[in-house]
Order: sequence, then structure tokens, then C-alpha cells
Amino acid sequence: MKKILVIFFLSTAVLFAQTEDEKAIRSFYDAALTQGKAYDWLNHLSNQIGGRLSGSVQAEQAVRYTRIQLDSLGLDRVWLQSVMVPKWVRGTPEFAYIETRPGITSNVPITALGGSVSTPVGGIKAKVIEVQGIEDLAVKGRDQIEGKIVFYNRPMDPTLISTFQSYSGCVDQRYSGAAEAAKFGAVGVIVRSMNLRLDDYPHTGSMSYGETPVNERIPAAAISTNGAELLSTTLKLNPEINFYFKQNCKQLDDVESFNVVGEIRGSTYPGEIILVGGHLDSWDLGDGSHDDGAGCVQSMEVLRLFKVTGYKPKRTIRVVLFMNEENGLRGGNAYADAAKRKREQHVFALESDAGGFTPRGFSFDCDQANFQQVQSWKPLFEPYLIHQFIQGGSGADIGPLKTDELVLAGLRPDSQRYFDHHHAENDTFEHVNKRELELGAATMTSLVYLFDKYGTVKPEKIKGR
Amino acid sequence: MKKILVIFFLSTAVLFAQTEDEKAIRSFYDAALTQGKAYDWLNHLSNQIGGRLSGSVQAEQAVRYTRIQLDSLGLDRVWLQSVMVPKWVRGTPEFAYIETRPGITSNVPITALGGSVSTPVGGIKAKVIEVQGIEDLAVKGRDQIEGKIVFYNRPMDPTLISTFQSYSGCVDQRYSGAAEAAKFGAVGVIVRSMNLRLDDYPHTGSMSYGETPVNERIPAAAISTNGAELLSTTLKLNPEINFYFKQNCKQLDDVESFNVVGEIRGSTYPGEIILVGGHLDSWDLGDGSHDDGAGCVQSMEVLRLFKVTGYKPKRTIRVVLFMNEENGLRGGNAYADAAKRKREQHVFALESDAGGFTPRGFSFDCDQANFQQVQSWKPLFEPYLIHQFIQGGSGADIGPLKTDELVLAGLRPDSQRYFDHHHAENDTFEHVNKRELELGAATMTSLVYLFDKYGTVKPEKIKGR
Repeated sequence: MKKILVIFFLSTAVLFAQTEDEKAIRSFYDAALTQGKAYDWLNHLSNQIGGRLSGSVQAEQAVRYTRIQLDSLGLDRVWLQSVMVPKWVRGTPEFAYIETRPGITSNVPITALGGSVSTPVGGIKAKVIEVQGIEDLAVKGRDQIEGKIVFYNRPMDPTLISTFQSYSGCVDQRYSGAAEAAKFGAVGVIVRSMNLRLDDYPHTGSMSYGETPVNERIPAAAISTNGAELLSTTLKLNPEINFYFKQNCKQLDDVESFNVVGEIRGSTYPGEIILVGGHLDSWDLGDGSHDDGAGCVQSMEVLRLFKVTGYKPKRTIRVVLFMNEENGLRGGNAYADAAKRKREQHVFALESDAGGFTPRGFSFDCDQANFQQVQSWKPLFEPYLIHQFIQGGSGADIGPLKTDELVLAGLRPDSQRYFDHHHAENDTFEHVNKRELELGAATMTSLVYLFDKYGTVKPEKIKGR
Repeated sequence: MKKILVIFFLSTAVLFAQTEDEKAIRSFYDAALTQGKAYDWLNHLSNQIGGRLSGSVQAEQAVRYTRIQLDSLGLDRVWLQSVMVPKWVRGTPEFAYIETRPGITSNVPITALGGSVSTPVGGIKAKVIEVQGIEDLAVKGRDQIEGKIVFYNRPMDPTLISTFQSYSGCVDQRYSGAAEAAKFGAVGVIVRSMNLRLDDYPHTGSMSYGETPVNERIPAAAISTNGAELLSTTLKLNPEINFYFKQNCKQLDDVESFNVVGEIRGSTYPGEIILVGGHLDSWDLGDGSHDDGAGCVQSMEVLRLFKVTGYKPKRTIRVVLFMNEENGLRGGNAYADAAKRKREQHVFALESDAGGFTPRGFSFDCDQANFQQVQSWKPLFEPYLIHQFIQGGSGADIGPLKTDELVLAGLRPDSQRYFDHHHAENDTFEHVNKRELELGAATMTSLVYLFDKYGTVKPEKIKGR
């Protein structure tokens, strides 16, 4: 009976409180949809600056531009946080063909994987062995692999509803494929693009040579899904065909870059920091609109929406535009290191790095008590068709901050179209819908508002129960 | 206590039943995502046939094509249902400009509204009066309106999360604007396109002259949202400017067309019909991919998915591709009339006519008992991120079937991008995503499966409780 009474009082409290919360959340959505800035900002980042690979001129332009924009919002503080980042350059366009007989060739679209070494100046021509994943290498053995190009062709699983799950099930081929194939004497690696659709865009992305000594590193490129189908079919007809590819990318020395940071100081608990962010760098093929221009401008918009609606946060709300998520995570690591050094207390961190599509919910990396609190907020999000509140990952950049006391979260937009564009030439502004982007920003603002207002459930509170 | 026991037994039954249901639903999604036909069918309808306005050659080609495709599925019966449809033709391209001073003109994109009369051969040039809706006409009065072109410029409300609600709040301007303005002596009507975005596409759509005598009918056209903004701004600078437009559309005599129908006969209750459908006609400007090619191919796919997964329905599952939803609803009315005449018993009808975007849920037009049954199925849809089960409208074509015993439903896809394309030149195949289309088809199949398996809650059962 006591339990029931407690529930009753809690419910009543929630009912009364909700009127104010409902109003606040409505005001965020209204402002985002009628006087939003996110889309304009993204237009500039994408169309005036373009792809922003770490260490590039464009990345530095993006730092300067977003800093100026944050400066214009009347925040309490805006600053740059210095961080050394890797500088990998693609060089001249890659080139590849399938040679079915001497002199009879079909060009196929490829792109060097980020971090790959170049081919020799004349390119590489070799026979090809197709595998369905890293596990296959040991099955084939050195006999069948040595001197050949390994072609990783396991496709993304189309039956998974979350395309990020399909991606997770394939991306080891891209990330570790070269290091693993080198162990068996392969001379190069071609990886099927991480794309659920059949089209002609090769999708780049980061790869690592792990412990492979410098002189044993082999070049790695992604091939478009249509190219992968063609290569696989051709191999079935004749396993003795040759594949040729040429790329002249290289890794230069690290250069200085910056995380861009701005904050509104909390009125009551300024020492408790709520972080919202995305990553400012992108791959170089498209203009990085979905990955992750969208997340950056949505995060900036959270602070701007507080300003324009007149909401004064109790806790410090900080936006961080991280540098170098794509090929190093240096910005995320540097930020976490500095936070530790300065003994900053982060209580909640939210990242948007899954595209600027219609928001569907959030994924939370936190304990049960905090997840229960979050679930109690679900009815507030229902009118905005935000239904998905799950436990799982959050975002790469905020990951290094992880402690037992911190609640981490990631925005979860609709994922169906994300990998059509991810890391490819067609990750461009015209594929971002203004309303979808704005709904994401308003949804993030609403969650930040709730964490600001109610705080997180602290471990000592949990123990005290 | 008795109540609790009943709930307990019910839950157990549901728990056991769900394993089978979960498997069946998984099989529909798997088949749709790995061996779907909907996208190929849509490709043909959109790219080989194109816009399919009632009475056009393309509409007849679509009848023939879909009939052949249904014939190939091994259904128990496929047939055409004859229906007389209106034939309205657009004629030569419309032309319009704003004239700020004699000889100084800016062209603006317009399109005749479906059903409109033409202008005189030389077009109409007149002063313009801007209004924010039909209610404004009485405020302005005949003095200010007579001899002028009425410019309806109330935009869609961007703060509504469902864009269909925004549409409902504006579309009276398009549908009844000309009939109402004629009462005040207007000589023509220009309507802001039903589009949330600012762009250069004019959006057509049906209009009606109501009781207006033939000789008093005035021509009506839609102007693109950018054009509407320009016209409004220009009028603010100088209310005396002229607007010119010319169109030579006309209404011809009715012609014969067809609903395309196919069915799988029910194994146990063949007399109980479950209908799934969309409309085969479309506007003429684009290729009608979202409106409503998508709904047609998804509905066809429902029956095909039953076939390929080996599910044998207990009730008769009928697909209906309705003709003339856009400008007459003759197909929907003819189908309902015939059903009544033949005393066919329809128990459930589902329409997909809200675009081929990621499915979010369904809207149900039914009594409380049936809605409760539907809500008990929600957990089965959660893994597919189908969360929205609401009471509301269903679909225009199935509306005429409505009885107390029939459960009507409409698929509810994500609505954010729908009105970017609706009735405009850019409602084209490349704006439909294959996976999103397929997820919609699988979601519809799953709901049809559940209604087939469990039936609807009949009124006599409700009374008997």
C-alpha cells in the first residue's frame, strides 16, 4: 500500500510539473521550426567550406566560421581548444580497372581508405582472391593469398532494421582488412563499400595498420557496391583475371587544429556541465553534411534555442564541436584529458552523429536508475513522434569522458538513408531536409532541458534509497 | 480477482501466440528487404509510364501493367472493374508574370489547378488582392475584390509535427478558393502552393467550383512558394501592380477506366474480405512516385509477400488499385457501390497513400474495441520501429466503404518530406528510397496478417460481453 501511495504522489508531482515542461518543449520546437539557424549554418559549412578532413584548409575554415557564429550568440564563453591532429592527404584521383584479358579492361570506381599508404607509382596489378570477411583469410591460407589482392566482399545485412547494426557487422573488413591480409602476404586490399544500396559511389572511411611494420603495409581502397558486384561476377567467370589500382595518398606530420567550444554558465550549479556536440571534421569526398555537419549545427542550435526562448539553464550548457572524429578521435580524447585535468564535472553528454534525418529517439549509455528517469520523460516526447528510448552506445567523441556518474546519449535519427551517403561523394547539403534537421535540434534541446532541470540520478542517491 | 485471472490467461495466450506471430512478421520483413518487388514495380510505373492522370494514356498503361503483374503472382483471381472517370487536360504550359510597371515583368512559376477552366485565349491581366484565407474575402468585400485576381497566401503551419495537419489547415484555399472568390466578383485566383519549403515548384491539386454556374467560373492556378513570396513582397511595395496568367486547360467528357483488383481466396472465411490498396492515378506534373505509385506497389507487395513466405490467409485478401482518387474519387465510390450491391462483407481495409517514406505506424478509423485489439499488437511492431498507433482517418479511396463493422486504417509514414513533392514536378522515382518503400510494404503485410489471423472484434461480440 505504501508503494502505491508513493507512486500516486510521484504521478501527481509529474502531472503538475509536466505542464511547464510541455510548454518549454513546445517553445523549443516552435522556435526551431520557425526561426531556426541550423540549416543556414549547415548551408555555409557544406556549400561555402565543403569537406573538412582533419588538417585541411577547410577544417580550419570550419573552426573559424563556427567560432564566429558561436561568438554571435551571446554565450558566456567561447574558446578554441588546441589539439594535434593527423594529416592524411588523398593526392590525385584514384584509378582502378578489372582486366579480363591483356588489354581488355573495365574501369571501376574506387577511393583510398583513410590512412592507407599509396600504391607504387605505377600502381599494383595482381590476381584477386575474394573473401567474405577476415575469418576467411585463415581458411584460404597463405598459399592462396600471397601475391594477390584480397577483395573483401561481405555486404551489409539488409534485414537489420537499424542500418548501424548492419554497418557494425561489416566495418571490420574496412578497418582491419589490410593489416590482416598483409599477414598472409597480400599485396593490396579492395573492400566493398559500406553501403546497402547498389550504386557507383565508393565510400571511404578510416582503417588501421595496427602493429604492421611500416615496410609491410599494403594499400587499401573501397570499391563501389556496383563495382564489387561486377568484380565478384567477373571472378566467378574467371578466377585468373587481374585487378589494377593506383592511389597516391600519404600520411604527413601531425598539425595543430582545434575543438570549438562555447557555453552558457549555469545559474544554480555552474560546476555541473552538460555537453552537447558533434564533430566538425568530415571526410573529403562530399561536403560532410550528414556526417557530421548536421550534428554540429544541431548542437549549436541547442544553445541558441535556449537563448531565443529565454530559458536560463541551472547547469552549465556547453557545446563542443570536436575535431578529428573520422581518423583519430584526437579531439574527443584531448577534450576528455583536459576535463580530467581540470577536474570538471560532466553530468550529461549528448552527441549527434548519425545524420540529419527525422529524429526517432535516443540511445543511452548509463545505469538503470538514470535510464528509468529518462523513460519517465517519454510522454513529453510523444507529441513530436520521438518514441525510441533504448540503452546502448552514445557517440564516439563523448565516449572518452565516460565515468560511472556521467549519463551519455546519442541522438537516433531515422537510419534508412544514412549509409547511402556516409563517407561518400553524395554526402551533400541537398540530401539534408530542413525540417528533419530542425526537428533533431529541437529534440536534443528538449532532452538537454530536462537533464538541466531535473539533473541526473547521482550514485549516492541510488545508494541512499 | 476474476478480472485479474482473465488478464493472466489472456497474457499467457498472447505470449504463446506471439512466438508464431513474431516469426511470421520477421519473415515478411526479411522477404521484403531481400527479395522485394515493390521498387522494381515502382520503377516501371514511374520511369516507363510516368504521370497517370485519370483518362490519360498513361493511366490506361498503368492499368494494363499492374494487371499483368498481378496476373503473374498466382493469385486466385485478378480482374478490372470498369468506372467512368473525368478527363481534365492541362493543355499547353501555363505562363504568368508580375508586372510592376508597363513592360517591366518577372515571370513566376504557376500550374493550373486540376478542374480549373482556362483563361481567355489572351490570358488575364488584373490587379491583385492578397488574402490569408477564404474568411478574408468577406472582410475585404466586393469593393476591394471585384475585377481583381484573388491571391490566397496563407502558408502551411510549420510548427505542426504532422505535415498532413498543416496541409488540412490550408487546402481549403486551393479546393474552394475560386468558387468563393467568384462570389465577390474576382476574375481569377492564384493560390500559394501547399508546400512547407521555399522553392520554385508549383503544386497542383483538385479544386471545385461547387454550385458556381458555368459562365461565372474563374480560372485558378497554384504559384510556387518562392513565387508567392515574391508576389507578396511586390504587393507590399506597390499594391497597384498587375498580375498576368494564361492557361488553356479543359474538362472533356468522362471516359471509361478501371480499378485493378486481385485476390487470394481465404481458406477458412472466404466471405470475409480484407482489402489493401492505393490509387493508381496521379497528377500529371511528376511521375506520381510518392502519390501514389508507392501505395500501389506496396499493396501489391502484401499479396506477393504472403505468396513467397507461404502464408495461406484464412480470409480473402484483396488488393485494389483505385482509379481517380485525385480528381473525382470515382474508383473508390464505384468499388464501394459494387461491394454493397454484391453484399460483400469487408472486415478490414488498409490504404497506403501518404508517400513511400519510412513507416512510423497506422491511423485507425474504428471503434474502441477494435482499437484496443490493435494496441495489443504494438509490441510485435516495436522491433521494426513502428510506434504510432492512433485513431483518426484512413484513406480517401476506402472511405466510401465505411460501416460500423469495418475497421479502416491508413499507413502513416514519416511525413516531413511529403509536401516537398506532393502534386509537383519533383514527385519522382529518385525521391523514393528502396528500403523505406520496402519497410512500408512489410509493415502493411504484418498488420494484414494479424487481422487475417485474429479477425476483427465484431459488434455482436462486443454486445455479448
